[in-house]
Amino acid sequence: MVEINDKERIDDLQLKGLRLIQNVEKFCFGVDAVLLSDFADVKRNYRVLDIGTGTGIIPILLAGKTQAKTIVGLEIQESMAEMANRSVILNELQNRVQIVHGDIKKYNEYFAKSSFDLVVSNPPYTNKGCGLVNPHDSKAISRHEILCSLEDVVGSAAALLKPGGQLAMVHRPERLADVICSMRNNGIEPKYLRFVHPKPYKKPNMILIKGNRGGKPELKVQEPLYVYNLDGTYSDEIHKIYGREVTKIE
Amino acid sequence: MVEINDKERIDDLQLKGLRLIQNVEKFCFGVDAVLLSDFADVKRNYRVLDIGTGTGIIPILLAGKTQAKTIVGLEIQESMAEMANRSVILNELQNRVQIVHGDIKKYNEYFAKSSFDLVVSNPPYTNKGCGLVNPHDSKAISRHEILCSLEDVVGSAAALLKPGGQLAMVHRPERLADVICSMRNNGIEPKYLRFVHPKPYKKPNMILIKGNRGGKPELKVQEPLYVYNLDGTYSDEIHKIYGREVTKIE
Repeated sequence: MVEINDKERIDDLQLKGLRLIQNVEKFCFGVDAVLLSDFADVKRNYRVLDIGTGTGIIPILLAGKTQAKTIVGLEIQESMAEMANRSVILNELQNRVQIVHGDIKKYNEYFAKSSFDLVVSNPPYTNKGCGLVNPHDSKAISRHEILCSLEDVVGSAAALLKPGGQLAMVHRPERLADVICSMRNNGIEPKYLRFVHPKPYKKPNMILIKGNRGGKPELKVQEPLYVYNLDGTYSDEIHKIYGREVTKIE
Repeated sequence: MVEINDKERIDDLQLKGLRLIQNVEKFCFGVDAVLLSDFADVKRNYRVLDIGTGTGIIPILLAGKTQAKTIVGLEIQESMAEMANRSVILNELQNRVQIVHGDIKKYNEYFAKSSFDLVVSNPPYTNKGCGLVNPHDSKAISRHEILCSLEDVVGSAAALLKPGGQLAMVHRPERLADVICSMRNNGIEPKYLRFVHPKPYKKPNMILIKGNRGGKPELKVQEPLYVYNLDGTYSDEIHKIYGREVTKIE
């Protein structure tokens, strides 16, 4: 049995019976985590690292959707890591998913260099110093670069990926130049870029980007991913990614 | 009277009676030049440089559409520069548009540093060494980085722009990482990015990007520019940019 604390709820992920524990007062997963899980190229027997796993949503989705051998979720906030670990146990995924409580800046204390086929990350989006934030607030830590910067994510991914390994990230369009330059400066060449738009004719509000360690320069900008069609219904692609009739996504 | 040579034709630009001489055997202007002319922020009394002006289409369009004081078109191919100059005379724009025959790598032989408010460029898109090209072929020089690389354009723009001045370029999506990194490495911060798609749900085939010398990092990815609507008609925006009923664009 898994303990569920006060303020926590269990959400049905509507994928192979998977469930997730979330704390209503802390950062809850959104469409970005779901889209990133679909966007990353996870192959059979891969060893995958999720930097800043939060609730553990990405490792749990990847365990359900892919044939990855091992998926490690690293989380700096102890209470989040502990809750994510209970979700792993709840889904009986202990043999494939590991939650590690730690700081990506000290990656060499937990992981060997060049030991992952794929690194994914849905990192804090907002630059340190932008806006008023409480550095002890759990939601703020998930959203702002207080404890983990873009450079921390990309730099550690470059060290932890095998040569040719993939870094897949979701981020905000206003950080695109930062993301691309950080990847290239760390030897991860941006290879695929996809913009997520609320609907056609609207500007994007999310970017999905994949790069390869030591890749050759040439970026493929893919078809836009529209969440809604022009008539306000969910797009076919959103239905396909969610794997069901979607009534409401967050 | 302006002389029109064999293989040349005069095209009506359908903008304030402006006309352009083109050589049917050489590089002729396309939708990219028209979109870039619309995308660049040209203000009253600006001094503008177009790097790799070709037929002179961009300076002539900007002379018709904006209140720029001076627009200089630099072109490395002597025969193109000479033809562009005849278009300037044909339109009686000699007081605002100057065509300079020269090599951007030697920019300091023609222009003073920090002397332009705006630099525009529709540069050769294809990396040197990609594909089989004849380096003496005029069309190849316009399309491939034989005589002018992306780095030449961005590096010289950084030197020639006033502090805060804008570089506006059109390029191919597969070079986006190169464009963004080259701008940032040369002190021109990418500020606005717009993708041009044939129609909604299709991947982009062109990028429009604006950066400012010494700008603060934060990229605005704008609404997509669709050439066609889903029903195959030209989009409202294309009609607006062309300033007329469009029947066919190249």
